Amino acid sequence: MGALHEGHVSLMRYAAAENTDVFVTIYVNPTQFGLNEDLDSYPKTWDADMHILDQLNQELASAGQGRVTAVFAPNTKTMYPTLPPDSSIPGVGSFIEMRPLGQLLEGASRPVFFRGVATVCMKLFNICAPDRVYFGQKDVQQTRVINRLIKDFHLDMDLRIIPTSRESDGLALSSRNVYLGARRRSVGIVLNESLRKAELQYKNGMRMRNDVLWPAFDHGNITLTEQDQMEPSKRAKFEVDYISLADPDTMEEIEVIDDRKGAILSGAVKMLPVEEPQAGEDLGRLDAEGHQVPVRLIDNIVLEPMR
Amino acid sequence: MGALHEGHVSLMRYAAAENTDVFVTIYVNPTQFGLNEDLDSYPKTWDADMHILDQLNQELASAGQGRVTAVFAPNTKTMYPTLPPDSSIPGVGSFIEMRPLGQLLEGASRPVFFRGVATVCMKLFNICAPDRVYFGQKDVQQTRVINRLIKDFHLDMDLRIIPTSRESDGLALSSRNVYLGARRRSVGIVLNESLRKAELQYKNGMRMRNDVLWPAFDHGNITLTEQDQMEPSKRAKFEVDYISLADPDTMEEIEVIDDRKGAILSGAVKMLPVEEPQAGEDLGRLDAEGHQVPVRLIDNIVLEPMR
Repeated sequence: MGALHEGHVSLMRYAAAENTDVFVTIYVNPTQFGLNEDLDSYPKTWDADMHILDQLNQELASAGQGRVTAVFAPNTKTMYPTLPPDSSIPGVGSFIEMRPLGQLLEGASRPVFFRGVATVCMKLFNICAPDRVYFGQKDVQQTRVINRLIKDFHLDMDLRIIPTSRESDGLALSSRNVYLGARRRSVGIVLNESLRKAELQYKNGMRMRNDVLWPAFDHGNITLTEQDQMEPSKRAKFEVDYISLADPDTMEEIEVIDDRKGAILSGAVKMLPVEEPQAGEDLGRLDAEGHQVPVRLIDNIVLEPMR
Repeated sequence: MGALHEGHVSLMRYAAAENTDVFVTIYVNPTQFGLNEDLDSYPKTWDADMHILDQLNQELASAGQGRVTAVFAPNTKTMYPTLPPDSSIPGVGSFIEMRPLGQLLEGASRPVFFRGVATVCMKLFNICAPDRVYFGQKDVQQTRVINRLIKDFHLDMDLRIIPTSRESDGLALSSRNVYLGARRRSVGIVLNESLRKAELQYKNGMRMRNDVLWPAFDHGNITLTEQDQMEPSKRAKFEVDYISLADPDTMEEIEVIDDRKGAILSGAVKMLPVEEPQAGEDLGRLDAEGHQVPVRLIDNIVLEPMR
């Protein structure tokens, strides 16, 4: 999707370590954005992206590994040759749909999202014919969708899932983070903190859903209350979209963690535009009217199986 | 789908004429049958199918052409590895949907049909990786779906469309014809006759929808009236599902034929079980209870462009 950051570069480093030729595709896919979502404001940073790839290639050349040998940046007429891309439901066009996998969690908030992802990935896979494809753990449900795509449609390629790149405090890197600004940035860590509290429960032997999740919900509620009690000029409010404890293949919610399978802890919060922005305050990148946009943050932690 | 007949063999002959290795896939795909359709009664004739392929290969060997070098007859767990195949609407699983193309005509009568066809063909294409795929003109809308699949998903293969094989009176070959029996067989030609009457209008210079189609509807109505007036022990009643004059790419109905594009004339009729079957009468293959099943016949004629 472009707006490359260290998380994307991390995927390429992993790819270059085990392949001679790394293909990078950069395409902001319209069909994975709903009609009311942020397609228009999604950051497009072509020159900066190419600079990052150049830097990476210089580094890879001296390391004697594979290199980025092609960037595939198609236009929309190439990707959607027959009908203009449609983000409505059901929507006209040729689409891959996965039910119920694509309708859960992120798919519940964004009903066309995984339809768009699965469809564009099938096209990209057919065009590029990769031996291996690299996706980030950050978008965990997306990795499940791609895994299912490869399996159900018998695609001849291996899926590699690369650990999430994070800021030093744990915030997952995301192209959308540039929109946060300082105030929301500092509060936005609440999601990762909550998930880590739940992870600790698992590591301490808890297996029942409520035993694992309650400290995550508790931390979210406490943080919300703290923000509510602060002055509007200083606080950053947010909404919790979901906190999930799910089966690692189907992403369906589970009541008990099976030690042999483990589970996926995941969540999403929506950071609302700050109230009473102050003169000189770092508000992050603003929209065309000079306002903050809501920023949806997602994160997840894999609870590995305990043999 | 198996139940091989001369129409299928014709596809293989064309394939062997321009390829060294012809792969035949035989799989009765459950997801293209609706919950109330004839999946269970669809003819399965493995031994006869293999005999036909053997005979064909002997013939091809002496002709010095390509040969049938593999038959791929997967089980359903292979084709649907994650979830059991589901024919409900919307249905769970990983599916390719084409809107509106897959919802028109045959798709209007059979809402899951083209979803099942597109999905299973994508799987088969990925498994077999063919240079060329061969489909019969008889299923004209299916050829449009496959054409769209190849184009929209950037599949690296050519589509060949092979003319419909017919009985001497013009009846299109179909695996379902074995269920007709003599009485319905003789009346079933009404569909092809009707389409040919419409084709004649086109050849005689007509371009407006009603001018082209009226003789087809008229012939259908006359034939229905004739059957109605016959004794129940002698007649074969039928229902006309549709008679269509459509755009050759989108299969959408058109009001005027564009000389540069031509059009597709197509239709479907349902032959009802005969009334008062007579002792010794050829009733065709019967169902497990010894009754005739309704038989849906389809046919089409391509109105070629007039440069």
